[in-house]
Amino acid sequence: MAVRVLGIDPGLTRCGVGVVDVEPNRTAKLVDVVVLRSPADLDTPRRLARIADGLEAILEEHRPQAVALERVFARSDVSTIMGTAQISGVAMLIAARRVLPVALHTPSEVKAAITGYGRADKAQVGAMVARILGLESVPKPADAADALALAICHAWRTGGAAGAAISDARSGAGAARSGRDGSGAALTPAQQAWLAAERAAAVSGAARRVKE
Amino acid sequence: MAVRVLGIDPGLTRCGVGVVDVEPNRTAKLVDVVVLRSPADLDTPRRLARIADGLEAILEEHRPQAVALERVFARSDVSTIMGTAQISGVAMLIAARRVLPVALHTPSEVKAAITGYGRADKAQVGAMVARILGLESVPKPADAADALALAICHAWRTGGAAGAAISDARSGAGAARSGRDGSGAALTPAQQAWLAAERAAAVSGAARRVKE
Repeated sequence: MAVRVLGIDPGLTRCGVGVVDVEPNRTAKLVDVVVLRSPADLDTPRRLARIADGLEAILEEHRPQAVALERVFARSDVSTIMGTAQISGVAMLIAARRVLPVALHTPSEVKAAITGYGRADKAQVGAMVARILGLESVPKPADAADALALAICHAWRTGGAAGAAISDARSGAGAARSGRDGSGAALTPAQQAWLAAERAAAVSGAARRVKE
Repeated sequence: MAVRVLGIDPGLTRCGVGVVDVEPNRTAKLVDVVVLRSPADLDTPRRLARIADGLEAILEEHRPQAVALERVFARSDVSTIMGTAQISGVAMLIAARRVLPVALHTPSEVKAAITGYGRADKAQVGAMVARILGLESVPKPADAADALALAICHAWRTGGAAGAAISDARSGAGAARSGRDGSGAALTPAQQAWLAAERAAAVSGAARRVKE
């Protein structure tokens, strides 16, 4: 039984949204991918509403079982963090109102899950996303590939158990944590099996890491 | 003709919401003030939904003409900024969907407008809010007084012209600016008159500044 996950790479100018179906054997299939945009000459509230409208339309169309969101960290550019945090808040609200579990994953968790290497660059992530989904070319722009990577990462990390996402999101409240979330202790046997499979895949993934 | 402004002091644990009616002669009347709360043991998406529900109920009940929000700045505690930015995003979305203008004001702008002194402390702001609104005691907790201060500040700074708030929000997109927003060049004659009145009030306000 496949799990359908919607991944969001949050942003005010470009917000990547990817939907994948992931089978228990880790096979992943592309359902849809779009990059929502809002014009920079609109005020922030209207930009947020524009992105929110697009997000709701995609949720309505594809009805995912879980939402995976990039965990936002402090970066050098304060205005970027604010826009990203605002979009994240809006995405969380929309998911919560549809009673969808929301999980947060850091960029390094996503890179590690997808490429086997937590410091992989965008080209490596894009190439692995294309390979995992059996696409002929890398999804562009990077926000699209990142959103798909988030969705795949989430399905792989949780073993496709949509409900498991809730505790992950809870441990990420405030988005101030770093590294892995240390929730291993609470894993079900099925999740532990997934985790083992993920680790094995990560090792082989590292060995065959895509060259640019 | 009074303008009704809803002020929001954004926060995930406590979100102050104050509604005031402000007359063209700067007289302000309390309409309502509440502090919305969300339990820390809920995950962030549900906490945002809890606050959003409360905010929508107040908007529905009091139908303000404008929303004033505190402009968020980088502070030492990253998790606080994130929660505040997420709530701000949610508040902006809700306002935008009701086609309400949203204005951002910095804490020092609010303090300057209310007490005449941009570095006033919370007790001074609370005491002035109580005096302006003719209340027998200072609204508690501080989030309640801050939300009312934001609403009064907004009405005073814009001369009660709800439409003027849009350009203010636009100049604040990204919430990364500091100080006054330098929009003086775009003021209408009515707004210039208000600004002059505000400056006069700020001077006398500074002179009679409330002691603790």
